Amino acid sequence: MNNNKINLAIVGVGKIVRDQHLPSIEKNTNFQLIATASRNASVEGVASYKDIESMLDAVPELDAIALCMPPQYRYDAAKLALERGLHVLLEKPPGATVSEVEQLVELADKQSVSLYATWHSRHGAAVEKAKAALSNRTIQSVTLAWKEDVRKWHPGQDWIWQAGGLGVFDPGINGLSILTRLLPEPAFVTQATLSFPENKAAPIAADISLTTANGITVESQYDWRQEGDEVWDISFVTEKGDVEITHGGGALRVDGVAVELPKHSEHGEYEAIYARFAEIISQGQSDVDLQPLKLVADAFLLGDRKVLEPFLD
Amino acid sequence: MNNNKINLAIVGVGKIVRDQHLPSIEKNTNFQLIATASRNASVEGVASYKDIESMLDAVPELDAIALCMPPQYRYDAAKLALERGLHVLLEKPPGATVSEVEQLVELADKQSVSLYATWHSRHGAAVEKAKAALSNRTIQSVTLAWKEDVRKWHPGQDWIWQAGGLGVFDPGINGLSILTRLLPEPAFVTQATLSFPENKAAPIAADISLTTANGITVESQYDWRQEGDEVWDISFVTEKGDVEITHGGGALRVDGVAVELPKHSEHGEYEAIYARFAEIISQGQSDVDLQPLKLVADAFLLGDRKVLEPFLD
Repeated sequence: MNNNKINLAIVGVGKIVRDQHLPSIEKNTNFQLIATASRNASVEGVASYKDIESMLDAVPELDAIALCMPPQYRYDAAKLALERGLHVLLEKPPGATVSEVEQLVELADKQSVSLYATWHSRHGAAVEKAKAALSNRTIQSVTLAWKEDVRKWHPGQDWIWQAGGLGVFDPGINGLSILTRLLPEPAFVTQATLSFPENKAAPIAADISLTTANGITVESQYDWRQEGDEVWDISFVTEKGDVEITHGGGALRVDGVAVELPKHSEHGEYEAIYARFAEIISQGQSDVDLQPLKLVADAFLLGDRKVLEPFLD
Repeated sequence: MNNNKINLAIVGVGKIVRDQHLPSIEKNTNFQLIATASRNASVEGVASYKDIESMLDAVPELDAIALCMPPQYRYDAAKLALERGLHVLLEKPPGATVSEVEQLVELADKQSVSLYATWHSRHGAAVEKAKAALSNRTIQSVTLAWKEDVRKWHPGQDWIWQAGGLGVFDPGINGLSILTRLLPEPAFVTQATLSFPENKAAPIAADISLTTANGITVESQYDWRQEGDEVWDISFVTEKGDVEITHGGGALRVDGVAVELPKHSEHGEYEAIYARFAEIISQGQSDVDLQPLKLVADAFLLGDRKVLEPFLD
């Protein structure tokens, strides 16, 4: 093995790992994937283990680990890896609660390793262009709509419907991660309604109103019952005209005119994530922004609950 | 008026203000109460206003303000007072969301005034004695039970049943405020069940499991359907025996033996709060510990929801 490379393992080999993590790691010369841990899956040509503990015992040369299992299981794995002195990358959402991730931040500091809470949608081609467009405008209000068909995007993913799985906020938190990157000051929840199917522990739809200290209001809607095309849009109303992000961060219109964006590869968001992970490891830093998860927790705390008819997926 | 005193106003004149705040302020020579704002109530001999804005306009000599309205209305009032350069005391819970209080902390810093998120139960006679008793013991596990009759303790308080009113966590957060003071390290929620009456937006009962990084487990139960005597108890199992706080922080048993406590006056907790408020004002500091509210938010985020039959109060 090349000792200049960061020896990486992945825990939780599922769809997002095959679609995004593996090709992005492949392209990044800083990393080499040398092990995986997953109950039922493995990666061709890479040593595979049934669980993280056996893997850590068997592969002491590991430097870093990417945790891609459901958030309900992430804390224990992250704690173990940090205690063994590994750098840790967390898929989004970074955990099942805000407090547990705050504990991981402290542990990473104590261990002098890097903890990275990723928000892949922040690396969409439109996001930093939108930031630049907004930099000389005054935002008056914002609307956010994050609507997709759960049957199309999350087939067979039982964990998203379980307590701690966040329900419609599993995708919706992507919108909040872009929103919090683009607002000039922190937002907080002022009103929320969460709609739970009678047979599910997580919401299928939600409306959240937010505001900032200086009075920028955000009306946001999340819905998993969308039919037809998904809507992943954020629209900033400014004194000069609208700045609109669509396609989940993939497209941008300013004052109604489409902005040409640098051509992103189909793995652009995750390539940026691994570039950033290598960067914070080399700088000896962590990168953990909990704003999106805090807003979701506050929405659950403050929100009115509606119970809907059972949803059959 | 005596210029050496802190000119204080109270917003939200209700039961807790009459029972606790007024006698405690009366006894504290650092403060003089010079105004109140409340929709329907006033204090004999003190200038009263219908709302905080009119009061702030009419009484420019105010130095500090105690906000005792329901948490859903606290942010706007606190922001206004901090912007006018007043020191602000927040009744518990400090706000309707974690993020809004974090914003107030930033604003208080910017304004160089003191913000104080009070947790009255932390000033119960048993709490610091328990802290001392636990200091040379190893806590193995903890149980917390916070059970009272909502009809007895919260008659006519509609806001506690509304979204953002916290329901059974309005009292339960008192238990969590003591727990978080006494644990040697932060706890976080690992499992929760919240029970909502069908006709209410807030839970009437809950079970929360917590743990700490080093594996101290806490099993906690909250119930507003208690009949007979209230149960406000926290029991720490240690290697030497149990340290038990009962009566909401008012009594202590160590290894089964009742510990004699300094005689607290019936307003002891709130007298300690106003002493602390004067202290942080003189030191130019804020005192905002959001751990208890974060744990409640995380319980809502992570928790399973049960819907119960309607509750008629």
